[in-house]
Amino acid sequence: MPLSADDQARLDALHARFTALRPLSVGYPCNQQFDYSPLFRFLEFAANNVGDPFSGSNYRLNTHEFEREVVAAFARYTKAPEGDWWGYVTNGGTEGNMYGLYVARELLPEGMVYFGEDTHYSVAKILRLQHMRNIMIKSQPNGELDYEDLHETLRIHRDVPPIIFANIGTTMKGSLDNLQKIRAILDDLAIPESYIHADAALSGMILPFVGQPPPWTFPDGADSISISGHKLLGCPLPCGIAIARKRNVDRIARSVEYVGALDTTISGSRNAITPLMLWHRLKTLGDDGLRALVHRSLALASYAVEKLRATGIDAWRHDENSITVVFPRPPDSLMKKWVIAPKKKIAHIITLPPMNEAVIDEFAADFVAARLAG
Amino acid sequence: MPLSADDQARLDALHARFTALRPLSVGYPCNQQFDYSPLFRFLEFAANNVGDPFSGSNYRLNTHEFEREVVAAFARYTKAPEGDWWGYVTNGGTEGNMYGLYVARELLPEGMVYFGEDTHYSVAKILRLQHMRNIMIKSQPNGELDYEDLHETLRIHRDVPPIIFANIGTTMKGSLDNLQKIRAILDDLAIPESYIHADAALSGMILPFVGQPPPWTFPDGADSISISGHKLLGCPLPCGIAIARKRNVDRIARSVEYVGALDTTISGSRNAITPLMLWHRLKTLGDDGLRALVHRSLALASYAVEKLRATGIDAWRHDENSITVVFPRPPDSLMKKWVIAPKKKIAHIITLPPMNEAVIDEFAADFVAARLAG
Repeated sequence: MPLSADDQARLDALHARFTALRPLSVGYPCNQQFDYSPLFRFLEFAANNVGDPFSGSNYRLNTHEFEREVVAAFARYTKAPEGDWWGYVTNGGTEGNMYGLYVARELLPEGMVYFGEDTHYSVAKILRLQHMRNIMIKSQPNGELDYEDLHETLRIHRDVPPIIFANIGTTMKGSLDNLQKIRAILDDLAIPESYIHADAALSGMILPFVGQPPPWTFPDGADSISISGHKLLGCPLPCGIAIARKRNVDRIARSVEYVGALDTTISGSRNAITPLMLWHRLKTLGDDGLRALVHRSLALASYAVEKLRATGIDAWRHDENSITVVFPRPPDSLMKKWVIAPKKKIAHIITLPPMNEAVIDEFAADFVAARLAG
Repeated sequence: MPLSADDQARLDALHARFTALRPLSVGYPCNQQFDYSPLFRFLEFAANNVGDPFSGSNYRLNTHEFEREVVAAFARYTKAPEGDWWGYVTNGGTEGNMYGLYVARELLPEGMVYFGEDTHYSVAKILRLQHMRNIMIKSQPNGELDYEDLHETLRIHRDVPPIIFANIGTTMKGSLDNLQKIRAILDDLAIPESYIHADAALSGMILPFVGQPPPWTFPDGADSISISGHKLLGCPLPCGIAIARKRNVDRIARSVEYVGALDTTISGSRNAITPLMLWHRLKTLGDDGLRALVHRSLALASYAVEKLRATGIDAWRHDENSITVVFPRPPDSLMKKWVIAPKKKIAHIITLPPMNEAVIDEFAADFVAARLAG
């Protein structure tokens, strides 16, 4: 039967509300400018990417072939070792981080996880779910790991192998932990076994396209990396990539096979459409389009810092490769209009499409007005 | 830039392949007949249902309001206790089972998980991921738990609280574990603390619409239930419902809050479109439409058993409420045409749309021909 008139009106109202909110949603790391309508015709099928995209599936309505190409592109962006990587398209950052930490725990069952205090709360949830011992490390004021605290804490716990959860772009401040510094500490302490997972949710699609990226890739020391698909690229469905060293995944696959679990992914049934969307996006943007998108966003971030500062707001960003513009928490009245996510004393905007200079000007003017009114 | 002609041709070929495979995909529990095109316009937004659907989100481009109505409908189908349930829309059965077992482990940290040998392999994966001790219980030939083995095994391990993973429809045989029998065993052994999670992936949308359902709901003893959305209802994206007793979830929420993880769902970022699709499906089918869908599928299952038997194939189903028609493993040549998933010595078809009598007749004829050729 058709929807009732009331229900139809509710859907129309939802669409109108989303349309109005889109240009005001400046506080989340989501590119909102995309067009996947050429792929909608695939939503008439009950497709499913269940299982390992590289090993085939009995369920032939899948897009594993396209998924493999997407993972291969991300292997290139993360400089994954030739012939020694494996990955899949996840339902988002949490699953990617869960996967990396799962691989780490299987390799180092007694391992202790270290993560900075600016780490996203979902990581605490994963560590609890997976029963992993962990220690929170102090942050520097800029949100980056306090390497002295890391060094000292590792030194005290040299009896258990360390698993470092590194942020390649923290949620609030866009801060990057430096993998070379982390590796240097591990070397200095002569720690024989360790694992580094890099959560590069947002920055993992920025850094491949800048001139002087900080150390964050596999050759820099990462053992697994998680990158979101719905953030810089933009996608109506949260998604991401989990990628890890193949030799590690293979070791786990053997132990997983032993317990009868034939699937090396976490989700089991996985949707077939986000791999197709990511594939379409990468193909239609190309590396040149991605580079242009990244540099436009970086230029806007620079503009936003200057504009906010010029109006008396103490804005900053972690470095010239960050599109996360941080500032003191605005008065609550500003959040009635703008969709931003303050935390304690700070808030941020993230300069992704459809943001432009006019939006930033309007935001800065509203911010100043809210301060004066407060 | 537009897709290259080659890439466009690949997408066209994929669509053609899916179109050809759809009527032949008879071995998976997926209703393939649905039309969500009225909702495609919502795929132009970077919406996100991050967090608890009942507690609100800063990210205002969400469909939490619709998600709550979907969960409420499933609370009704599962006879969840008034005012004492909580749930959310998951990315599929694995996440729903992971959630139920996570709740169980947090309540009974020393608990031992018991599950039948016919349980889906993904459960072994979850138990490993969550570090839960577990024992596999023998199955009866029909796939249902061997209650004597369960009784005897529980008796031996009375020092640890049991967590029972019950199948309300096993993957291969569609067998149902009987919650009243399980509860009776727990009572007989005077076990003071226990937890039952019910995996009702497929049957959870059948049993609310039959006359004499076996005991499988909350009043029958379930503490949490997982039901798939992409199976009986049909959805282009794998999804499902996790639903649990609210008092248990609240206890976990407190402990999760303590570690700084503010989110009681497993995924974190969750897509906003599957809740909308499930809402649309429930609204446009209505309980009458759902009942008709269920009874049509049951009638087809009955027809399939008779048809296959009439042609000399030893087909059967667990009981008159099952749409899973089981038969001896066919010759491999049959799987070249038909998409079915044999396991060891058996295989099955599942009688969901667009299947009809003509498809079953064709399948039976091909089966017999393949046997003769073999």
